[in-house]
This record gives sequence, C-alpha cells and structure tokens, in this order.
Amino acid sequence: MSAVPKTHRRVVLVRRPPGEPAESDFRVEEVPMPEPRHGEVLVKVAYLSLDPYQRGRMRDAASYAAPVGLGEVMTGGIVGEVVKSENSRFKVGDVVEDRLGWQEYAIGGAPSMRVVDPSLAPISTANGVLGMPGMTAYFGLLEVGQPKTGETIVVSAASGAVGQVVGQIGKIMGCRVVGVAGGTKKCAFVKDELGFDACVDYKAEKDLDKTLLAACPKGIDVYFDNVGGEISDAVLRNINVFGRVALCGSISQYNATTPPTGPRLLGTFVGKRVRAQGFIVTDFAGKYEPAMRQMGEWIKSGKLKYREDVVEGIDKAPRAFIGMLRGENFGKMLVKM
Amino acid sequence: MSAVPKTHRRVVLVRRPPGEPAESDFRVEEVPMPEPRHGEVLVKVAYLSLDPYQRGRMRDAASYAAPVGLGEVMTGGIVGEVVKSENSRFKVGDVVEDRLGWQEYAIGGAPSMRVVDPSLAPISTANGVLGMPGMTAYFGLLEVGQPKTGETIVVSAASGAVGQVVGQIGKIMGCRVVGVAGGTKKCAFVKDELGFDACVDYKAEKDLDKTLLAACPKGIDVYFDNVGGEISDAVLRNINVFGRVALCGSISQYNATTPPTGPRLLGTFVGKRVRAQGFIVTDFAGKYEPAMRQMGEWIKSGKLKYREDVVEGIDKAPRAFIGMLRGENFGKMLVKM
Repeated sequence: MSAVPKTHRRVVLVRRPPGEPAESDFRVEEVPMPEPRHGEVLVKVAYLSLDPYQRGRMRDAASYAAPVGLGEVMTGGIVGEVVKSENSRFKVGDVVEDRLGWQEYAIGGAPSMRVVDPSLAPISTANGVLGMPGMTAYFGLLEVGQPKTGETIVVSAASGAVGQVVGQIGKIMGCRVVGVAGGTKKCAFVKDELGFDACVDYKAEKDLDKTLLAACPKGIDVYFDNVGGEISDAVLRNINVFGRVALCGSISQYNATTPPTGPRLLGTFVGKRVRAQGFIVTDFAGKYEPAMRQMGEWIKSGKLKYREDVVEGIDKAPRAFIGMLRGENFGKMLVKM
Repeated sequence: MSAVPKTHRRVVLVRRPPGEPAESDFRVEEVPMPEPRHGEVLVKVAYLSLDPYQRGRMRDAASYAAPVGLGEVMTGGIVGEVVKSENSRFKVGDVVEDRLGWQEYAIGGAPSMRVVDPSLAPISTANGVLGMPGMTAYFGLLEVGQPKTGETIVVSAASGAVGQVVGQIGKIMGCRVVGVAGGTKKCAFVKDELGFDACVDYKAEKDLDKTLLAACPKGIDVYFDNVGGEISDAVLRNINVFGRVALCGSISQYNATTPPTGPRLLGTFVGKRVRAQGFIVTDFAGKYEPAMRQMGEWIKSGKLKYREDVVEGIDKAPRAFIGMLRGENFGKMLVKM
C-alpha cells in the first residue's frame, strides 16, 4: 500500500450534450482526498470501466437509473484497492469492485461493493468478462435469448465488452455464431481469436440483409442486440419464426438529438412469433455468483477469451468514452489509473 | 335438412390489391355444387367469418400461411351444417366449424374440422367468442400478456371480435381494462355493455398519450395490440417497467403500399425491460378444449358478452371486409348466408 496523497483527480459532467458528447461536456478537476467515515472505505481506483449505458446517465430523463447531476462525478464501474477501511466487511489491501465513478480515489462500502479474487484472472476483468459486461452477456444470452444447440445467434457490436462474451458463450452452447462489427480488424478478431463462425463488417457491406443471410444459411434464431438502428433492422427482417431478441442496448441511437424513426418491425413479429425482450443486468443480481464461477472456469480452460482496450490516465476518459460511442474502441474499454 | 341445390355462390380473389382492397379485387361466381368424396362432407355454410388476417392472405408474400391464389376461393372460417357425409366422424345435421372459405357450400372433413355444440351458445359464436377470435383473446392475453390481478391492460380495436373478449377476460382477472376504439358508440359499448373501466376514442383525441395516461393512472402493464401504427406508438411510449406486449395484429398497416415507418421503440424497451411477443392462435391449438369450456361457462354466467355485426348474403362479403379494415364494423364481423 502506497501513501495516500492529499488530492486526487476526478471527471465531472458539466453540460448535457443533446447529441454526440464533446470533451468540453466534462471537466477534469483536482479535489481534496476524501476521508472514509464509519461504514465506508477509501478505494484507490486501478481501472475505470467505460460502458455505453453511461451515455444514458448524461441525459436528464427518466430511466432505470437516476441521471448524473451537473457538477457531479460521472458514473462508472471501477476496480481498485482498499487503502483505508472503516467497514468490517473490507480490509486494507482488498481488491473491490463497484460503481464508484470516474475518479482516482473513491469512497465505497455500499452493499453493492464486492471483493474481487485476484487469483481468478487479472483484476481488470472485474469490469469486463468477470463483471457487469460479462454478466450482461451471460444472462442476456442464456436467460433472455435462450439459444438451443444448433441454432444461429447473431450478436451486434461483436468485438465489444458484451458482444465478445455473447459469441463465445454461444459457441460453448453449440450454436452457430455470427457477429456484426465495424472493420476488418474487429471481424478478423472475433472469427480468428474468439472462434465466431462468421462476422459481417457493417462498414464494408452495401447489402446487409444479403450478407447476413449468406452468413446464416439457416436464418437467425437469436439476436443479441447491442446497437439498434439499421443493423438491427437488417437482422430483424431476417429473423426466423419463433426467433428471440435480447434487447441489451442501442448504441447507434444514444447520441440522437431527435426521436429516431425507422421501419415498423413489430407487425412483422406477429406471424413469426418473435419475442423481443429488454433486460438490464442487475435484474439477475441474485444469480451472479454461480455465473461468475462458470465464467471463471471457462476462462481457465481457455474457452472464454477477452480483449481489452486500455487508455492510461483519468484525463483520457472523456476522449475514450466519445470514441467508444463511435465504435473506435477495440474490445472492452478501460481507463487505467 | 333442405334439399341441396345444383349450384352455389362463392367469392374468389381476382386481383392482389397493393393498398386498400376494392370490391373489384373479388368476384362473386356461381359454380356447380361439389360432391363429397370418401372422407369428405358437404357443409351448408350458415355464417362466414371476416377477420383481419384474411388481408394478409391476399398478398403473394411469405407468411405463416400460404396466400390465396388468384381465381381461388377467399379464405375464411365458417360455421355450418353437414348436409352430406362420407366421413364417419361427421353425420348429416352436425354443426361444424373450419376454415372453408367465402362460399355458400363447401367440402370439409379435414382433421381441423370440429363439431360445434349448438346448446352452448348461438352457432355464430363458433367463429367468434367460442372460436378463433375468442381463443386468440384467451391465449394472447393469458399466456402472452400474462396479466396479474390489479395490473392495467390496454387493448386496441377494443370493440372488435378479439378486443371485446380480451377486455372482459381482463376484468374477470381483476385488472383495470382500458380499451382503444374509434368513435363514441364503440367506446360507450365497451364501457357500458362490456364493463371496461375506460375507453379512449382515438378518432376524437388529439393527444393520445395524455388521454391514455389519464385513463391509466398506474401506467400500462399489458398491451394487447391488434392495430399497430400510431395508436400502438402512444401505448408503448407509456408502458410500464416490465410491461408485456401481446402482438396479435396490426390492422392499421395491412393496406400499406410501402414498408411503414415510425418511431424506433425497441431501444426504449431495454431499460423498461418490456417484452413484446408475437403469436398466432393455432400455436395453442392443443389447449383449445379447456379454454372453450371456460369461455362457455363465462358466457352462461353472464360474465362474457359479445357483439356481432352481421351482413346477409355472400355477395356482401367483399364490401363488409373492406369496411372492417377501415374499422367500420361494430363487433365481430359475420356474413350470414
């Protein structure tokens, strides 16, 4: 344990962008080091997780979670080390994970904080494959998508934090897995490194429907949707009878300044008996433990790989976040402190 | 049993309308009386059922059922009397129900043909509340919508064959039931006659969202969607967290000549964990019998009422069908022979 400095840096939201965020919507500020009170701990953040849902928290709109207030620290998951503890559940030196925001040090100790076992995998995975994105993939695919052996799964944002896990679990389940990603590098990665059966490069393809059908000769049974918009339109036009759609996110729409429009798809769901189901990972919080154990085993046995995209320094967080919303990241987006 | 004439009339499809059908898309023709062969019966049709799904069968497009061929008899459910039988399952005088098309006499005897008990209710109900529309309402609401006591259900096309049953089952389940229908007469009917808690007149209301919310002070938990389009947009904008959508049909879109567009709603389903599920009634065919029995009991005890809109004469079928697609009917649309 290193000495705790007198100040630390954090990123606060200073403006709510109507469309694409700019770096000027955030402010990096240096503030006095907080002191944990009874029941609290002080955490030295090792990694900050940047995730698409955080764009939603920048809006002053009703959602499943409260918005970040102007002048408040941006929300985000972190993994770090307890450096001071006034909470008997945590001791100095524990590696912990919780949603403590974009900052170098943070006060924690809430019931949602969990101790991470650093012997399982590198601690950065507590924000990725063994954290919220991994659990999102696990429960979204298995409990919402409910794939059966031999079926075809399509997952969008396939090389992202969630998508890469979805596809690999799909392969473990004995399914045909087709990713959708932007660019040849990402497509090559999910095919060659992660073992997807095919990947459609949405940036290169003129006729997404045709390319999707070519990659899915038996049609599409399960669609794990991270992106919404035109990519999802193409997938949903080609979904099979009794197809299932796990609605995880719609990153293509997060910066929209007007309510987005598109083809009316619900009418086509009737005859095909398609089921589309929105979910958020915390609905499954009671089942995380066995899922984490399972995922840990898959990692150890080499069945589950992961890729991270790491930038260094809290001041780089806004720029990295804006890039992630554009799809510029390649793998789970993390900020290393 | 009256003597069987030498000819009878039927309605065939002669043109596939791109948009709203016209009477000239159909032809009423007189043809020789068919003779049942081994395993078949001759049915004298009493009532022909006109239902929105028949618009889909006029299209030459892939669907859950084959299209009606040009020059072929329009598809439709009927109830009638067996007047000749070469099938040991059916005897002359039996009242039977099956999808035998728009005609005065028809050859039946398929496994899908069932004998109707005329002591239960008037035989016209075999095409309505005790037939396909009733089963659609029953299974769509209870198995797809899954309402819980105290929840709020909204049903569109509330005075139609399916909608009126959905709402009444909702009341039996102890739910708040709000209909959407066009015109004060239909709205008064579902409230005053059928016992819905409220009805929104979509033709009179400028601000559907506001009126819906006023009628649903606790929000909307289950939406039974018969119409699609702008009415459904308004309902889905106001659906509750963990809301369920039973996608039954989208009559507002059936005459569309270009792929319809509208607001992108799937993205809003994520945080609200909304589940939208398409279904067709025949998926539940194995469970019809107990459901029919239950519905029959509700009818006898006065808990389940129904309204029919009957025109007389097979030659009136095209006009009545076109009107139904416009919402001009008031209750289950039937043609009496």
